Amino acid sequence: MQEELRTEPKLKSKTESQLTVLKLGGSVITKKDEPMTPNLKVMQRLAKEIADASVEHMIIVHGGGSFGHPLAKQYKIKEGYKDPTQIEGFLKTHQAMLELNKLVVDALIRHNIPAFSISPSSCVVTKGSRIQIFYDSTLTRLLNTGFVPVLFGDAVLDNNTGFNILSGDQLIATLAIRFKADKIILGVDVDGLYTADPKTNARANLMPHITLPNLKTLMHNIEEAKVTDVTGGMLGKISELIPAINADIKTFIVNASKEANVYKALKGEKVAGTLIEKE
Amino acid sequence: MQEELRTEPKLKSKTESQLTVLKLGGSVITKKDEPMTPNLKVMQRLAKEIADASVEHMIIVHGGGSFGHPLAKQYKIKEGYKDPTQIEGFLKTHQAMLELNKLVVDALIRHNIPAFSISPSSCVVTKGSRIQIFYDSTLTRLLNTGFVPVLFGDAVLDNNTGFNILSGDQLIATLAIRFKADKIILGVDVDGLYTADPKTNARANLMPHITLPNLKTLMHNIEEAKVTDVTGGMLGKISELIPAINADIKTFIVNASKEANVYKALKGEKVAGTLIEKE
Repeated sequence: MQEELRTEPKLKSKTESQLTVLKLGGSVITKKDEPMTPNLKVMQRLAKEIADASVEHMIIVHGGGSFGHPLAKQYKIKEGYKDPTQIEGFLKTHQAMLELNKLVVDALIRHNIPAFSISPSSCVVTKGSRIQIFYDSTLTRLLNTGFVPVLFGDAVLDNNTGFNILSGDQLIATLAIRFKADKIILGVDVDGLYTADPKTNARANLMPHITLPNLKTLMHNIEEAKVTDVTGGMLGKISELIPAINADIKTFIVNASKEANVYKALKGEKVAGTLIEKE
Repeated sequence: MQEELRTEPKLKSKTESQLTVLKLGGSVITKKDEPMTPNLKVMQRLAKEIADASVEHMIIVHGGGSFGHPLAKQYKIKEGYKDPTQIEGFLKTHQAMLELNKLVVDALIRHNIPAFSISPSSCVVTKGSRIQIFYDSTLTRLLNTGFVPVLFGDAVLDNNTGFNILSGDQLIATLAIRFKADKIILGVDVDGLYTADPKTNARANLMPHITLPNLKTLMHNIEEAKVTDVTGGMLGKISELIPAINADIKTFIVNASKEANVYKALKGEKVAGTLIEKE
């Protein structure tokens, strides 16, 4: 890392450009079926795409993939504290997420992005798994001075249940609303939202554009039919983002496993995916 | 890690016992003269000593040693933001500290201590290198439910100078006062406070006990004489702790590089070192 940081943070008092919140899905940056295994090649590629896009004002949030999820599931952390054997799982889930976060931030710094790790459990307390307290002074200062804060789904303390998992998706919606983001880019391992599960239904079509009312109707129908998510699991993730979409923040789902998609989405270039808008 | 966590946090609403704040010096847990090299053997030994002492209510803070210090020095992070080339150093110092912290917390968890990493830069903002804002909801909850928060000297944001180094010693004094600690144990790589530098003066004697007024006189004399710290560098560290000592928190300096010293200090057993008291 001989050359200077490409984005050259100026420690300026206020940034003019619009904020982008970028999610790097856990299934993209880790090897899904191998516990605690990062996908370093993809991390490097994504770091390069983000650097090449030269977005000035950005927050990055990443998921847990094969680092956080298996541990959280094994110890039932999402159910809150029930017995002492879970404590080891709570601690290990947090440590696993810190380990993954270090790799992500290292990759970003290597590509001259002024990435600074923020540990959600150090500044967030949830209540019944919803964010109750969010200390954001550090985040505000980081953004105002040109840094790129990097957060992640984390094992956090909960005022009702003792502890819980704060999903990267809830974090994204909260951050996007609080910091008045212009857009959210969800980099996941599918191409977007489908009319049916593309893995089982040959007639499934990618929806390039959907409005919030239509999205809600789709969700309602699925709930009524008491079936599993026919769209292949994306609707569950998106439901966390509804408050942000409702606040008029454009949300774009794109397949980050495919080369150049995140770059194009960041640059506002044409790319396959699903755009969700308020109306 | 088959057996249950030894200390078995009970997620109780309030803890009865007195709080101990333990510092693990950077020179103890890293190899001082080898950049980015942990002393894993010492970390494991200290984790075992802490586990064996079964202290219920504790905060651990560790220093940077050969992880944080060389980078912070090279990029002059303590001087605050002056030019863009420092930004890389600021980011790398933070990453290095997160890496060291992971090793410390892993060692503690391996010894069944319910250790939970708190990233100081995620919850503290300094002003002119002094702590200005400290978000402590997570810390309070961790302590009240039986966890052991683990913090560290960190590269933090500063409202005057852009960024700065928050020393583990300033952190310790602040935490000890805020959470009404009973005692502070400073685990360093010297035996305590000497009447002269033991490395150069054969007549230097270890002071087993010193009161705050006497400590201040000693500091004043050194300042008057315009000499470097004759006690071998310990006075500088201790000056950060004066507010805590003044708040009647007993501060005990002990050589953590020597086996069983930290265990004995935690248990309140007799051990060589320097006790500093208000009066």
